[in-house]
Amino acid sequence: MFNAITVIGCGLIGSSLLRAISKHKLANKIKVYDKSKSVSTYLSKNFSFEVFDNISESVKGTDLVIISTPLSSYQEVLNSIKSNLKKNTILTDTGSVKKIINQQVLDLKLKDINWISSHPIAGTEYSGPENGKEDLFKGRWCIISCDENISQENIEKLKKFWIKLGSKVKKMSFEDHDYVLSLTSHLPHLIAYSIVRTSVSSEEKFKEDVIQYSAGGLRDFTRIAASDPLMWKDIFINNSENILKVLDNYSKNLDEIKVAIKNKDSNKLLEIFSSTKKVRKEIIEAGQDTEKPDFGRKN
Amino acid sequence: MFNAITVIGCGLIGSSLLRAISKHKLANKIKVYDKSKSVSTYLSKNFSFEVFDNISESVKGTDLVIISTPLSSYQEVLNSIKSNLKKNTILTDTGSVKKIINQQVLDLKLKDINWISSHPIAGTEYSGPENGKEDLFKGRWCIISCDENISQENIEKLKKFWIKLGSKVKKMSFEDHDYVLSLTSHLPHLIAYSIVRTSVSSEEKFKEDVIQYSAGGLRDFTRIAASDPLMWKDIFINNSENILKVLDNYSKNLDEIKVAIKNKDSNKLLEIFSSTKKVRKEIIEAGQDTEKPDFGRKN
Repeated sequence: MFNAITVIGCGLIGSSLLRAISKHKLANKIKVYDKSKSVSTYLSKNFSFEVFDNISESVKGTDLVIISTPLSSYQEVLNSIKSNLKKNTILTDTGSVKKIINQQVLDLKLKDINWISSHPIAGTEYSGPENGKEDLFKGRWCIISCDENISQENIEKLKKFWIKLGSKVKKMSFEDHDYVLSLTSHLPHLIAYSIVRTSVSSEEKFKEDVIQYSAGGLRDFTRIAASDPLMWKDIFINNSENILKVLDNYSKNLDEIKVAIKNKDSNKLLEIFSSTKKVRKEIIEAGQDTEKPDFGRKN
Repeated sequence: MFNAITVIGCGLIGSSLLRAISKHKLANKIKVYDKSKSVSTYLSKNFSFEVFDNISESVKGTDLVIISTPLSSYQEVLNSIKSNLKKNTILTDTGSVKKIINQQVLDLKLKDINWISSHPIAGTEYSGPENGKEDLFKGRWCIISCDENISQENIEKLKKFWIKLGSKVKKMSFEDHDYVLSLTSHLPHLIAYSIVRTSVSSEEKFKEDVIQYSAGGLRDFTRIAASDPLMWKDIFINNSENILKVLDNYSKNLDEIKVAIKNKDSNKLLEIFSSTKKVRKEIIEAGQDTEKPDFGRKN
């Protein structure tokens, strides 16, 4: 499908991409760069990819370049590769925030480069190349965003790439992406961090109990709150505007419940709790989760 | 193990109890009362339990009475059964709040009745007798609480009952139970309701997107927020003091993150996000969850 693909940054997502590209035979040459020596060694030992220790060399002659580093490294990565990008190459990424990143790319005024950002909505609570999985993108959404001057041909080419990995692809503006994800992903993570911190800061006497009886609900938050700290720090800083906006709405909703509890207002509480059941149904109908109860999984 | 057991209230928990008691042959007679005619009909059609249409008759001569109704029905249930309870019977329940309920029982000044409350920490997002499962309590914790005047013999008898159903049993004071559960279960549910409400109250334009991309984190909250509204309304009203207290701590933690995002304070955010990873590890070590990533389950 491509003559050569370069993956820059080889954590959970990057290494899953490499495995998937290899499995589906989407490139004649699979090239990879990671700034960590131990990651490079791991890759050389375990795979047959072309591992580079020079980032700018890694993109030479490549048709598809995928940046898969933390967001805070993009600027450095872009500066290192911009002079060596092949004419008409497709440049994409896998980051969770788009608007600010797009601006960084635009500021470089790249010529004859097709910048189409990607966000595969996939991941686990584990990071690092040893946790990558070749089927990580299977059945997951991938959101792509680009400016209007990008040709339909190149958009289709990138779409096909994700579809070959098993993903469903949707095109969205950079701005809409950031707002929707602030609701569906960034706010939930922020909340998970807060609640887990609240629980562990409880009285010493109850520390063990809190861990022990976490199956009552807390457990599901600790999984989310165990995601890669560096990645999430970058997301919150780069999408701060949207996140602070949805956080304000969230606080209002929380206050509404708080007041209802204080007033022991049964009707209001019933109304609130009934309204959220409907959403669950819609998510199941949209194929985003199964009906199978999950609370009952291994205690 | 018992000559006769009566289960009052036959929703998810009550019906799971009936199935489990029957499977493990823990009583010669299994009796059940539910105020809903359709539930009684369902039970008569599908099981061989003794189904009563008179609540006070259902407890006559019974060694173990289990109240498994919503908390708001306890007072009515207690008043209906108190005169017919057998001497030396064990009276228990399955409710998620203890202190207020204990007071309700004490106020009745029952004589020769062994009141030992139980809270099996088990459940799914589905309610109703048709969703009950005979192995719902297997491997789950059950917290029991009682006053000091209850004999060790009776405590052991109830403990054994839960252990036979596969549960691990811990004794805790009524007050400690309510505080620990407010952290591990009630606060998480409250938060889940708030965030799901925030997401669905987003602009109309994004409604569909929010559902579609919920796999990024929101999905896990919608499962929690789909639990039985009536049950949760009762929990919040009956444990309001603890819940409002932990909610205050939670708000402080949330504000801390909010300020760090506003100030784009990378170090603070990294510190916060790293601290929560540890908790996850402790929960896995305590056997309360598996290491297996769950984000990757059916999209």
